[in-house]
Amino acid sequence: MATKPGIPKGTRDFSPSEVAKRQYIMSAIKHHFETFGYQPIETPTFENSETLMGKYGEEGDRLIFKILNSGNFFFDKKKIELPASLEELLVNSSETITTEQLVELNKFTGRISEKALRYDLTVPFARYVVQHQNEIEFPFKRYQIQPVWRADRPQKGRFREFYQCDADVVGSTSLWQEVELVQLYDSVFTTLGLNGAVIKINNRKVLSGIAEVIGAKDRLIDFTVALDKLDKIGEDGVKKEMLEKGITADAIEKVQPLFNFTGTINEKLDKLAELLASSEEGLKGVEELRFICENVIEIGLGKSELDLDVTLARGLNYYTGAIFEVTAPKEVAMGSIGGGGRYDDLTGIFGLKNMSGVGISFGLDRIYLVLEELGLFPATVTEATRALFINFGNKEALYAMKAVNKLRQTGIKVEMYPDAAKIGKQFQHADKRGIPFAVLAGDAEMEAGRFTLKNLSTGTQENISIEELAEKIK
Amino acid sequence: MATKPGIPKGTRDFSPSEVAKRQYIMSAIKHHFETFGYQPIETPTFENSETLMGKYGEEGDRLIFKILNSGNFFFDKKKIELPASLEELLVNSSETITTEQLVELNKFTGRISEKALRYDLTVPFARYVVQHQNEIEFPFKRYQIQPVWRADRPQKGRFREFYQCDADVVGSTSLWQEVELVQLYDSVFTTLGLNGAVIKINNRKVLSGIAEVIGAKDRLIDFTVALDKLDKIGEDGVKKEMLEKGITADAIEKVQPLFNFTGTINEKLDKLAELLASSEEGLKGVEELRFICENVIEIGLGKSELDLDVTLARGLNYYTGAIFEVTAPKEVAMGSIGGGGRYDDLTGIFGLKNMSGVGISFGLDRIYLVLEELGLFPATVTEATRALFINFGNKEALYAMKAVNKLRQTGIKVEMYPDAAKIGKQFQHADKRGIPFAVLAGDAEMEAGRFTLKNLSTGTQENISIEELAEKIK
Repeated sequence: MATKPGIPKGTRDFSPSEVAKRQYIMSAIKHHFETFGYQPIETPTFENSETLMGKYGEEGDRLIFKILNSGNFFFDKKKIELPASLEELLVNSSETITTEQLVELNKFTGRISEKALRYDLTVPFARYVVQHQNEIEFPFKRYQIQPVWRADRPQKGRFREFYQCDADVVGSTSLWQEVELVQLYDSVFTTLGLNGAVIKINNRKVLSGIAEVIGAKDRLIDFTVALDKLDKIGEDGVKKEMLEKGITADAIEKVQPLFNFTGTINEKLDKLAELLASSEEGLKGVEELRFICENVIEIGLGKSELDLDVTLARGLNYYTGAIFEVTAPKEVAMGSIGGGGRYDDLTGIFGLKNMSGVGISFGLDRIYLVLEELGLFPATVTEATRALFINFGNKEALYAMKAVNKLRQTGIKVEMYPDAAKIGKQFQHADKRGIPFAVLAGDAEMEAGRFTLKNLSTGTQENISIEELAEKIK
Repeated sequence: MATKPGIPKGTRDFSPSEVAKRQYIMSAIKHHFETFGYQPIETPTFENSETLMGKYGEEGDRLIFKILNSGNFFFDKKKIELPASLEELLVNSSETITTEQLVELNKFTGRISEKALRYDLTVPFARYVVQHQNEIEFPFKRYQIQPVWRADRPQKGRFREFYQCDADVVGSTSLWQEVELVQLYDSVFTTLGLNGAVIKINNRKVLSGIAEVIGAKDRLIDFTVALDKLDKIGEDGVKKEMLEKGITADAIEKVQPLFNFTGTINEKLDKLAELLASSEEGLKGVEELRFICENVIEIGLGKSELDLDVTLARGLNYYTGAIFEVTAPKEVAMGSIGGGGRYDDLTGIFGLKNMSGVGISFGLDRIYLVLEELGLFPATVTEATRALFINFGNKEALYAMKAVNKLRQTGIKVEMYPDAAKIGKQFQHADKRGIPFAVLAGDAEMEAGRFTLKNLSTGTQENISIEELAEKIK
């Protein structure tokens, strides 16, 4: 016998119960996307390489899966001949590469590959908006639930193929969108039964304000990374790290309130306003945060909590206003289960200026692990067939199949065992499949137009009509 | 402004209304797959090339999209150096290629590409069954709704990326599965409101029997292709074509009844039994067809028709028993909207012997076109948001958003216009989006805790409470 076949590293097969659980999460997300007025779009699995390349930084370019041109690319010598400047790389199998060589290499790859797999849903969305701008009524609220691919090194919880679930609005700068996106996160997590997910919010302008105040714009990431460790290494540890990173003691002194940044959201906002008094941009950020938080609190949340976190800086160069991140409830060590923010000029890369966008993403794989760990998947999610009709031979099978057909028409999931196998084998099949009932019909039942229903967990049997059967097993 | 971005040829963007219609069809298919006891699985978008290559014939291999190895494949000279035997191809840009060169070429492609996009759902399913055989309880009824990719020349109705919707059972040779698959087709089409889809059935063994009788096994495809033209070119035309293809007049004479192959299914079966009396395999095929048809008729169908079509020969080398094909109702010139059949030894290619499988596939794109042409999509399918709350400024907006939040919690799709734009612009937005109601709330309404509901098609207005509002717009 041949060795068992496998699948590429970083990819997954999903079994029936896994698909059912994933669909349960996606249904909840989809339901709320739709009640919030977001409309679904779908974009192709692969885009033209030029649409994707250069949009995710140098690292991103490297992680994009490229598709080999189909057809006879190899019949054209010019297309696969390696440029002289790259010969050197081949001889000297080093992994360092000059910028000039990288450019040549990308050109070479471009000759044998002109298409690439979707890397995220944001760039294809921007491309979609620009391409279809004349058919779209703005502000355009769209959602998209599709897989993306990254040639990342696979590791626990990180895959080369995974789903993204995104909702974005494009074409309005109104902060009511941010208010609504916080509610959207909360609605989904509340529906999923998740108690205490923390929706963290920050604002790019507040971060710029802090950079201004400490007089070190280029040290902002070092600063927030260090500040984020406050819980772990304490105030002294954080300050030591900041000094090591070249942030002056004087600068650190200026933002001393951030080291004791507790209290209600309103108290935090007041502290920030004081701290950033000298920064026009910083104060604008505080004002935006205040509008969003006040209205969210006024309208009310379900089972989630809102928190203001000034260390939140994801995708710093990308976002221009609000920044969101959701962390799982404290009892699960999972980290971020969603994130997003506002990005002015979403579609500028494709030539359509002045389109502000704001959006959020749900991390399906991590939400799955959180629900699994907390036992929050309802038992009914993976429950499939309700009853197995036992097959006693073709005459009885026809009688059974007529009943099966009727029950299915009312939406009840029932099956007949396909072969007239030994009854023990058929019961075993029901047991292994987790089917709760068996239905038996031999000569006696057929004559009376009835069925014997057997409850497979209690073993009790009863002789009933098809109407009663439907009632009992549905 | 830059030129508008585009997408690769043969791929599609789906707009909100297109996604909604596609989801409507997929939901119906999924619903019946599940009531029939089929369980969902999902497999990765790309498989190891060795899993796919060589499974679809030489033409298929050429149409498989290959993914360029990620990382530094280009740093290893051995991996991209072209074999000497291929140099010739490059110099002489001919499109003919020797078998030896093809082997070398495939090896070369294999060095720069080790993964490939899914070409259908059947081979990945076979791979899945073999890989997970110890976790699977047989007979295993699985369904799979996922896209596949083919580097075909794009043309009207033929895409490079399209969905397949497959249901297969593996691990039982019972003909009740075939009976059930006919019912499954019928259930889906009946739910979709399709009147008169024709579920055609044939059997590979009947075709073998005919080949035996005409004494020309190698002419079987020519024979069925010619016979299929009976409606168009008449009996004389068909016979002329058969003679041209090298089928003897004597052979044609032997199967004369096939030229007048009308009547009920039972009459057709009787004719076939007589015709194939000398072929053991042929008679076995007739017996199988009789079992399936008799039971399907006895249990009854909804809006579809069952027909026995001896010219049906799709995937001749693939199927070993029943062959299915569904054609759209006569008033639509669409051809096949689904197909399938039984294939013994489904998993043999991956080393697991004696696994018989039978399955069917739904052609999503064509079903979409049929429903569109016949006007069978319910108007509610593309209906999204029910009411737009008008934004008069932040104070009014907060009042509105509290109501919006309450309505959404009951599942009603409502939105507030994000900006306090001119009211005319907001009404225009509702109009362009096809939103049937507008809700207005200014000082008077806020004081009274009420809302003004405006029906945008009739123009009538009424002052109502939130409970009445929910009732009116839901």
